[in-house]
Amino acid sequence: MPENNRTEISSLGEFGLIDHLTKNIEIQNASSVLGVGDDAAVIDHFGKQTVITTDLLVEGVHFDLAYTPLRHLGYKSVVVNLSDIYAMNAIPTQIVIGIGFSNRFSLEAINEFYEGVYAACEKYGVDLVGGDTTSSQKGFIISITAIGEVTPDNYVKRSTAKKGDLLCVSGYLGSAYVGLLFLEREKKIFMESPGVQPDLEGESYVIGRLLKPEARKDIIEFFAQKEVTPSAMIDVSDGLSSEILHICKDSNLGCLLYEEKIPIAEEMKNAAYKFEIDPTACALSGGEDYELLFTIPQSEYDKLVLNEEISVIGYMTEPEQGVNIITKGGGKYPVTAQGWNHLKQ
Amino acid sequence: MPENNRTEISSLGEFGLIDHLTKNIEIQNASSVLGVGDDAAVIDHFGKQTVITTDLLVEGVHFDLAYTPLRHLGYKSVVVNLSDIYAMNAIPTQIVIGIGFSNRFSLEAINEFYEGVYAACEKYGVDLVGGDTTSSQKGFIISITAIGEVTPDNYVKRSTAKKGDLLCVSGYLGSAYVGLLFLEREKKIFMESPGVQPDLEGESYVIGRLLKPEARKDIIEFFAQKEVTPSAMIDVSDGLSSEILHICKDSNLGCLLYEEKIPIAEEMKNAAYKFEIDPTACALSGGEDYELLFTIPQSEYDKLVLNEEISVIGYMTEPEQGVNIITKGGGKYPVTAQGWNHLKQ
Repeated sequence: MPENNRTEISSLGEFGLIDHLTKNIEIQNASSVLGVGDDAAVIDHFGKQTVITTDLLVEGVHFDLAYTPLRHLGYKSVVVNLSDIYAMNAIPTQIVIGIGFSNRFSLEAINEFYEGVYAACEKYGVDLVGGDTTSSQKGFIISITAIGEVTPDNYVKRSTAKKGDLLCVSGYLGSAYVGLLFLEREKKIFMESPGVQPDLEGESYVIGRLLKPEARKDIIEFFAQKEVTPSAMIDVSDGLSSEILHICKDSNLGCLLYEEKIPIAEEMKNAAYKFEIDPTACALSGGEDYELLFTIPQSEYDKLVLNEEISVIGYMTEPEQGVNIITKGGGKYPVTAQGWNHLKQ
Repeated sequence: MPENNRTEISSLGEFGLIDHLTKNIEIQNASSVLGVGDDAAVIDHFGKQTVITTDLLVEGVHFDLAYTPLRHLGYKSVVVNLSDIYAMNAIPTQIVIGIGFSNRFSLEAINEFYEGVYAACEKYGVDLVGGDTTSSQKGFIISITAIGEVTPDNYVKRSTAKKGDLLCVSGYLGSAYVGLLFLEREKKIFMESPGVQPDLEGESYVIGRLLKPEARKDIIEFFAQKEVTPSAMIDVSDGLSSEILHICKDSNLGCLLYEEKIPIAEEMKNAAYKFEIDPTACALSGGEDYELLFTIPQSEYDKLVLNEEISVIGYMTEPEQGVNIITKGGGKYPVTAQGWNHLKQ
């Protein structure tokens, strides 16, 4: 960005910045009674139950601005919170957002971030109803709280899976992690030889999965349409292994998982081979997939079978049987919670 | 704290830390259907409207750990959010909290912070129902979102004051700012001569107002009991001037304020004189008082007159008359939004 397109935030002041960032908001939900601009927002859920979740994202810990466009960051920050609302079988309706940033960020940069926020709000039918903007001594900090609604007592917890239930997952797993490997590699090359152009040819799928994930609104709508309520559900943010272990521990059950059933995209498989890593390991221990992992009674199987976005990957067992994976070679191994951070090391 | 009482957070892991911090939670509100431990919390407001507000607090910007005990910081972080809920004429019921901290913080330090959080939750009858813990590259970051409830359409905005309404404020103003001056002075002395003990003798009132503020739950309960609904309301976080200007601008009115009516504590007056500053300037332009500023129709005056915690400080006028203060000397001056930051310079 040329220097003459840089507007200092200080030229607006805090209240001017808030006015600027929120002036084009159009409320999409009747439940958003009062939005931005007062001490708090007011929401009327008309007899539904309210679902709430929060995330704190810190530059250098959760994202690297060297390869994350601010617009994508704004979009993703919203999506990861909405994913938690969908994972309760609820529909997100409002968000509040707090951001902190140092004076290295210009108004144009903050605008880009908010463009992504608003794009996500529009796509998912969510209203931004409040927030807080502040300075930080270092880096960019994002706090998002999402609110949703659910028909009373129709929410789905992690702890209510039953023995014999089928374990299912939406979409494909492990791609975001491989996308991260590419971006980290290119960043390293760039740091060592700044003249070299990034070589990300053909990897737009895995990189897109990392930088611009989507939340599985369609799956929750499908459940409503088919009148299926999962017995337990969680979203896949830390990696498949970690999430399966959450459901098993909280439901006091074991699980048998089949490697050959884990949904892996062809693009991810090819990309993983370039790094000489096992695609299954990426699916199990990568993360940031934002797919939905859920269990259903076997009697509901017929309702799901025609949805190509849903894979049955195993079933729930007695807790004494532990949490195991049957590999393609026929071996049986315990599933361990390695997650994203482990693979990163 | 002796080094042998230090427990590294890494010995617990993220999920272990969350379990540790949330294991003693007892739900206080029937509306808290599902609390900590799933993708999101579930709240049932039983036909009431939901009120939501969020704050992001950053070390070095909003607080200085050199003179802020972590327990007080936890308490205050909750209180400042509850204050925003009360300022809507609503009752807070739940909070979600995200914290980010670098590895210089031990488990004992995080425990202290949470002790303050839980003390505030208990005092105000609020449930902690969710959150996020993460690492930060530098310093301590706190994000709190508070949820409250209000009888449908009984919430109070900033923008609905009427011409002729009385302008009222709870408690005393300006003390937290003077408390900050003392602590900053002692910090400076300590940095220059580490052996010198702090001289805060007799200043516990103003320092207490800074470090451990309370939200005015009592005033909202008083309104309900007397069946008074303010015509507009805001909490005093940035200083009286700034908040008056918000109400005037948003309600499209002017205001006449009387210096002699501004409630100033004797302890604050004496403390301000030690710094040779004007107590009225502290009340107008200081901040972090967390009192409630509100307007009521003149016809409601009789209901408030016996409450010694409420002062009438002026009245609302036509917008053309501007926002002015009549000083003790009889002069008339425009009220400007200087706020906390201005005085700090």
